[in-house]
Amino acid sequence: MNYKLRCIHCGKIYESNEVKYTCPVCGSRLGTLEVVYNNFSHVEKFDLEHKGMWAFSRFLPVDLNHFEVPLLVGNTPIYEKRRLARELGLSNLYVKDDGRNPTASYKDRASALAIAKAKELGISTIYCASTGNAASSLSGLSAASGVKSVIFVPRSAPDAKITQLLVYGATVIAVDGSYDEAFDLSMEVGEEFGWYCRNSAVNPYLLEGKKTGAMEAALQLNWRIPDVAMVSVGDGTVVSSIYKGFSDLKKAGLISKIPMIIGVQAEGANAVMRTFELGIFDEPRDMEAHSMADSIAVGKPRDVLKACKYVKESGGKFISVSDDEIGRAIVELARKTGVFAEPAGATAYAGLKKIKDELKGKSVILFITGNGLKDINSVKRFVTQVYVVKPNREEAKEALRNAGAI
Amino acid sequence: MNYKLRCIHCGKIYESNEVKYTCPVCGSRLGTLEVVYNNFSHVEKFDLEHKGMWAFSRFLPVDLNHFEVPLLVGNTPIYEKRRLARELGLSNLYVKDDGRNPTASYKDRASALAIAKAKELGISTIYCASTGNAASSLSGLSAASGVKSVIFVPRSAPDAKITQLLVYGATVIAVDGSYDEAFDLSMEVGEEFGWYCRNSAVNPYLLEGKKTGAMEAALQLNWRIPDVAMVSVGDGTVVSSIYKGFSDLKKAGLISKIPMIIGVQAEGANAVMRTFELGIFDEPRDMEAHSMADSIAVGKPRDVLKACKYVKESGGKFISVSDDEIGRAIVELARKTGVFAEPAGATAYAGLKKIKDELKGKSVILFITGNGLKDINSVKRFVTQVYVVKPNREEAKEALRNAGAI
Repeated sequence: MNYKLRCIHCGKIYESNEVKYTCPVCGSRLGTLEVVYNNFSHVEKFDLEHKGMWAFSRFLPVDLNHFEVPLLVGNTPIYEKRRLARELGLSNLYVKDDGRNPTASYKDRASALAIAKAKELGISTIYCASTGNAASSLSGLSAASGVKSVIFVPRSAPDAKITQLLVYGATVIAVDGSYDEAFDLSMEVGEEFGWYCRNSAVNPYLLEGKKTGAMEAALQLNWRIPDVAMVSVGDGTVVSSIYKGFSDLKKAGLISKIPMIIGVQAEGANAVMRTFELGIFDEPRDMEAHSMADSIAVGKPRDVLKACKYVKESGGKFISVSDDEIGRAIVELARKTGVFAEPAGATAYAGLKKIKDELKGKSVILFITGNGLKDINSVKRFVTQVYVVKPNREEAKEALRNAGAI
Repeated sequence: MNYKLRCIHCGKIYESNEVKYTCPVCGSRLGTLEVVYNNFSHVEKFDLEHKGMWAFSRFLPVDLNHFEVPLLVGNTPIYEKRRLARELGLSNLYVKDDGRNPTASYKDRASALAIAKAKELGISTIYCASTGNAASSLSGLSAASGVKSVIFVPRSAPDAKITQLLVYGATVIAVDGSYDEAFDLSMEVGEEFGWYCRNSAVNPYLLEGKKTGAMEAALQLNWRIPDVAMVSVGDGTVVSSIYKGFSDLKKAGLISKIPMIIGVQAEGANAVMRTFELGIFDEPRDMEAHSMADSIAVGKPRDVLKACKYVKESGGKFISVSDDEIGRAIVELARKTGVFAEPAGATAYAGLKKIKDELKGKSVILFITGNGLKDINSVKRFVTQVYVVKPNREEAKEALRNAGAI
């Protein structure tokens, strides 16, 4: 094996066959593992167009003859937004739209890695506890790959999100209890049957899949790395993966700097930020979470230690924004760039708006983690009105005048 | 100009500055125009990855220094599905997933062309009458491109679809009347203010944008063209564009055959099929349309003549499928390929299922025209059940047994 696993808390190094998911000494909360590589084999050319995230196979903890999920994951577009950058006082602004993935979120990168890993291990059922993007992503990619998926959701999960899982043929267990109870039950049952675990943070390999988002951006920018990278933060794995992607590229000598990473949380769910600001990262400040940005409405972040360490290492920090700021950010981002993001996706832009003066003159990349079609309803109260008219020209013109369109 | 406009009904040829949208002799219903080129300049290499549909600029009726919409339109994935092909008795099956476009539908190709054309003409407002993909596509791409969009919808249009338009900043006029009244009002008002028209079929250039879907597929298949191409049909422009894309490539000498094109309609909205089967294409068989596949629930198809002529030319035909077949097709396609399509998108697959015996031994390409996230609700009654359990292991195992997961 070209890689080992290191506990983010105690630093102990394990062979990949020695431990399953987390450090047995430090436990599943603090003892999440990181994948460390001995070296990266040289690559001539990265074939993003045909391989998507698998263009970065040499940086991934799977066999070179790995199973590739037969959907194009990654190779999502990056947009340079010069005019918007000027408006905000930045030297440049890049928007990486990961809502263009097969199931419309960043999580597809992690699910693809999980499936490849399960196939490598000869396991044909994968499970997770999730109501959101991790679940839809796992069920969609599993369907394409011919593996079974079992999803544990709290019974309160919205109908539309569950429908999507069922369409893909997932077995959905609705647990009459909290998310945490669904999570614990999934781990118990998954363990008993020897299924593969796609629970965020618990499984160290998921982050390796996610890091390809940062790697792709770096490649698309011809290795010219922006000063600052911003992304929304719930559990803490995506923000960690952004660091890891740049960090592994730097180790391989392909880029010379890691951007300052700024994680943006919802005010009602800013446990990672609170822990970070405490300065002691292994005493997580859990809380009751409330936010319209459901993908990041996490009160007990499961990768908090890693997220804090990595972000600190990059010279960055965490900030938080209100639901109102998030709602307005969805609308403004859509109007100024054409990228319609789900609330968690637009949170990074809300954060940028909030601290733009601090970032004056810098170049910034925003990672947009999910498509707005996933959650149309929550944005309703932030949009302008519809003009109702009878089918006649004069009424239409009156309405257009009121709308400022003529 | 390297192109002219020809009336699909009378065959009269116009210079592009002589007519606006349709043939003045044959009227807007039958006299839709087709864009015919004198020749196609030679292209060394098609840069799909960076340019998306604009890789085919030489085949498009826009200036070479055209304005490109600053979102990546096109470069959507194509999947080879050998196992599913075998199951269906085909020699091969390709699935082109155009739900991966910026606003998640095939219509983005037409909207991008419309915006480029409007910019070329110096027009800064574009309008359309639509409740669906054409509207969301126009509003999203307009936002990115800094042009204004005005959308006319019937007042009955669903809230969620209108929200998306408002997020992008479109001016939305809800007409207290039918779709046809909204359409007529849009034409009147648009004409009065000199706005650019993005109404399907009326504007001959839209089809040219759409044809890039077929061209892309051909390129991705290294110019090896499948025997049969299948796509859903409402107004008739998409199916026409598939023919036009292959046909223009054949004229340019890049491919040697045009696939047999089979248009699939919903049974409750199969006016194009009825007209086609009549054998007289200029006496459209309009009807009251009813189908769960709202994007193709068209009773008065506005490009019927062209669609019939082109499909006949290809040696193909039209078929229709029930809403039940469409619903089951969404689920089966998602489970077998991981591609979650909206009802209209899955209609092509429903058609393939219906006539698979006729197509035995042939290679088939399916064009999937929109993402399932656009219409989650309509698929609800076709999925299996959720298993509700208390948070304990024994109940969970009982449920998993009932689900057949263990």
